[in-house]
Amino acid sequence: MATKAYGAHAADRPLEAIEIEPRAPGATDVQIDIAYCGVCHSDLHQVRAEWEGTLYPCVPGHEIVGHVTAVGDGVSGFKVGDTVGVGCLVDSCQHCGSCDEGLEQYCENGFTLTYNSPTEDKPGHTLGGYAERIVVDEKFVLRISHPAEQLAAVAPLLCAGITTYSPLKHWGAGPGKKVGIVGIGGLGHMGVKIAHALGAHVVAFTTSESKRQDALDLGADEVVVSRNEDEMAAHANSFDMILDTVAASHLLDAFTALLKRDGTLVLVGVPDQPHPSPNVGALIFQRRQIAGSLIGGIAETQEMLDFCAANDIVSTIEMIPIQKIDEAYNRMQKSDVKYRFVIDTASLAA
Amino acid sequence: MATKAYGAHAADRPLEAIEIEPRAPGATDVQIDIAYCGVCHSDLHQVRAEWEGTLYPCVPGHEIVGHVTAVGDGVSGFKVGDTVGVGCLVDSCQHCGSCDEGLEQYCENGFTLTYNSPTEDKPGHTLGGYAERIVVDEKFVLRISHPAEQLAAVAPLLCAGITTYSPLKHWGAGPGKKVGIVGIGGLGHMGVKIAHALGAHVVAFTTSESKRQDALDLGADEVVVSRNEDEMAAHANSFDMILDTVAASHLLDAFTALLKRDGTLVLVGVPDQPHPSPNVGALIFQRRQIAGSLIGGIAETQEMLDFCAANDIVSTIEMIPIQKIDEAYNRMQKSDVKYRFVIDTASLAA
Repeated sequence: MATKAYGAHAADRPLEAIEIEPRAPGATDVQIDIAYCGVCHSDLHQVRAEWEGTLYPCVPGHEIVGHVTAVGDGVSGFKVGDTVGVGCLVDSCQHCGSCDEGLEQYCENGFTLTYNSPTEDKPGHTLGGYAERIVVDEKFVLRISHPAEQLAAVAPLLCAGITTYSPLKHWGAGPGKKVGIVGIGGLGHMGVKIAHALGAHVVAFTTSESKRQDALDLGADEVVVSRNEDEMAAHANSFDMILDTVAASHLLDAFTALLKRDGTLVLVGVPDQPHPSPNVGALIFQRRQIAGSLIGGIAETQEMLDFCAANDIVSTIEMIPIQKIDEAYNRMQKSDVKYRFVIDTASLAA
Repeated sequence: MATKAYGAHAADRPLEAIEIEPRAPGATDVQIDIAYCGVCHSDLHQVRAEWEGTLYPCVPGHEIVGHVTAVGDGVSGFKVGDTVGVGCLVDSCQHCGSCDEGLEQYCENGFTLTYNSPTEDKPGHTLGGYAERIVVDEKFVLRISHPAEQLAAVAPLLCAGITTYSPLKHWGAGPGKKVGIVGIGGLGHMGVKIAHALGAHVVAFTTSESKRQDALDLGADEVVVSRNEDEMAAHANSFDMILDTVAASHLLDAFTALLKRDGTLVLVGVPDQPHPSPNVGALIFQRRQIAGSLIGGIAETQEMLDFCAANDIVSTIEMIPIQKIDEAYNRMQKSDVKYRFVIDTASLAA
């Protein structure tokens, strides 16, 4: 079915209106009319070919929410009219150890990303959520139980939400635990909200004095301006875990030193340039760890959505029409957004 | 009591015979006549002031075994004639969270090392095991149950043994687990023996083709020459943990890539120059971790000694008289030792 979308034909060309043709729903497919799509930094990197291997035309978007408009004969979990979401993944091998454990994000045979992954559908690679419509196997479709008026602000949960929820749960954020969140942006603001709702004592780290009150408003118990050495030193050896959402190259030692024995610094962003090599002594002398974490599995993403609905958590967003996507990218690069842009896909009809 | 020892008066002077005066045993002290002392890389670094803060005269040695020759009135766990050991620590605060958990090596108020730590005893800092005698609080004295003829080869268990046993246990090395040991030297050869005895499938990594048969003889199930990219690639994504005993700066990515999901690379050596900054993507895409680990607590050191006695594990050693210590240091720097020098302290009388 001819479907309006927004994408780029080459790395050096702006996004523009294009027409795509999602596959007709197969037996286990769910066809979704997209209402809103969040704007992730990955979209920008991929569409501008700042990462390797961008396939054109490139239609980004993996924070997708909308409504079911058709289902295949074999679909048991969804019906027309359901409010649903799609995140970063639309397929995985479904038979490796990680898939068996519901950890499709660590699929040993390679998952299929929501955009820019090879597929048998036209045009040979997946196309994302900057579009009116998407067709996805029901295994990768999430149920949304938030109130209808929150739907746009739910969209970023599908990437920013799960990317922070998964490591917070995995490393035990909860009552009695002191948890740091580094960087108060698209990911970090979700990390603060979720860690707070999980019952942890939350300390937000920001480089900007101007974000201090904002971080408290998001749910942080304390805020540390990380450029202030005295403020940092006051928290030495005290954190159970620190979730570092900053992708830009930075000094990890400033945060490992704040971990207590057996504490973990979890990285969720890949820097363009390597971080300065971490101080091994800081790891050895308190048995600290540096770990990485990637989004989350489908079952955990559903758990996160249900947790957020139960705790009245959504993203803090700024809505834009698709025609302002380049402006939004440019502002995002300057961290000029509180805290996530979301595209109103109704604007595709304009 | 005047006691013969070997130590250095300055960084640029060789070790030589000196006389020291250990304290008279206090109420909770154990006086030990030292039979053998292992030679650790730390000894060399400390005595030559390659690390900061060496205090002179410096008497190194923290792999100490011998026999009890006197005990204080309050000592309940040891009697004259007992065969005992002393490792890297001789005191800690005994009241912080780590000490309460028996993890004195992570004492939050600073432990006292067996040599080169401040003390009220003469000459104001602790003196180690290159000596005829040492006096240590009974809390830091270990019981040795190996056969008497193995005593010299037990000495290196007090540092090299516990430094590998503790992380192997902490990260779950055992039946059904695939464990890598990087570097087949003083630490690594103990790691291979212990991991094998714990029931893990052990893969030894060495840069030297010449060590292949040796590593198998030590108990490795497989040996990988880490310069051989094909051999390395064959083990991608397969290790539960890799214990990296190499202190020299090297590429950690070569080993993180071999970890399966949730696997951990454990570092036990602090490099003089930083390792190349590890690839964050390799951590994120399989939720891998890089951790550090420091020796072990007193209770765990006793557990290790008992485990080694029960499993007939000792270090593979080359015995030397104290007069050959400089030659031993020089050979150790060239990795020309299989696998640990041990000083026969009877030679101090020569």
